[in-house]
Amino acid sequence: MHNFDYSSKLLNNAVSEFAKLPGIGNKTALRLVLHLLKKSDEEVSLFSETMVQLKKNIKKCKICKNVSDSDICEICSNSLKDKTKICVVENINDVIAIEKTRQYNGLYHVLGGLISPMDGIGPETLEIVSLIDRIKQQQVAEIILALNSTPEGDTTNFYIHKKITSFNITITTLARGVAVGSELQYADEITLGRSIINRIVFKN
Amino acid sequence: MHNFDYSSKLLNNAVSEFAKLPGIGNKTALRLVLHLLKKSDEEVSLFSETMVQLKKNIKKCKICKNVSDSDICEICSNSLKDKTKICVVENINDVIAIEKTRQYNGLYHVLGGLISPMDGIGPETLEIVSLIDRIKQQQVAEIILALNSTPEGDTTNFYIHKKITSFNITITTLARGVAVGSELQYADEITLGRSIINRIVFKN
Repeated sequence: MHNFDYSSKLLNNAVSEFAKLPGIGNKTALRLVLHLLKKSDEEVSLFSETMVQLKKNIKKCKICKNVSDSDICEICSNSLKDKTKICVVENINDVIAIEKTRQYNGLYHVLGGLISPMDGIGPETLEIVSLIDRIKQQQVAEIILALNSTPEGDTTNFYIHKKITSFNITITTLARGVAVGSELQYADEITLGRSIINRIVFKN
Repeated sequence: MHNFDYSSKLLNNAVSEFAKLPGIGNKTALRLVLHLLKKSDEEVSLFSETMVQLKKNIKKCKICKNVSDSDICEICSNSLKDKTKICVVENINDVIAIEKTRQYNGLYHVLGGLISPMDGIGPETLEIVSLIDRIKQQQVAEIILALNSTPEGDTTNFYIHKKITSFNITITTLARGVAVGSELQYADEITLGRSIINRIVFKN
């Protein structure tokens, strides 16, 4: 794939593997490999083995489709979580980002992507049927649609909304607006416009 | 070491291993791990196995101390190389950088560091004795000192020069000056000063 000519095939191969990762160029790959070379055999083995173990043993939670070490993920099996709320997200990163805010105590549902006809991704390839099954089987009071505000996100929001609107549940979406701590003059006009339209009562 | 709480220990471990690499923060580490997760078992195994193989099988060339797949590296065993020239460098990266210029056809000697009393690195911990042995045993016409122009580099240059000055060989060092394609006004004054002192005959 790549041809580096570091006068060592072992080095070439290792750099080439790192350079396959997103955002890692040849120079960075070489730097990382030379760093690993300085480490002990045990440390390099641990690094490698961790990746193999991850790939081999990681599971998809049977309920929310998040990554999990067991059949049911830690969030779904956590008795302290509010099981009447399901936050619908595109992927694992979004679960991590929302969990980090510590402002949400409900469950998730990971779609595994967004509807994008251009990329051949239809609703049937996403975890939408499983979401509807959850709503049918569980006591769900609220569905929070937390998808990116892109055309694909909007399409997916619209599709899911249409599918679940007949159930007696509240459907909400994330507030969009000017970021906390940012200056108004630098906000784009669509975001600022949404901030004005969706203005909230001032609390002091 | 790190505590991420991605609700998966396998994911935590993998991110933690990547985050140990230099210049890789937690966010980048997560991105790389999620990328690997999307790959096939075979691709992840290949990635891991390549690192283990590198660490297990890489050798130090018995002549020049460069990394090598065999006892003698590809450069030292290449019959097309000019074996009367030895370019002394700090580490493997420098060999790669100079080889990439395609302007040098001699051999190398990798010191494995620079003399730095502050960091407890004395001449005896570097590959200086092996360099002198090479000069004694081989027909060496020129030693090129290609070390960084830092206090440590200058100290090491001075030390090696003193050790080999009694042999009948030409000792050279890299030309320092304004970079090709750069604007004079942005060059630092020491570099520009060296460019003037070491000016060369204009060729058109």
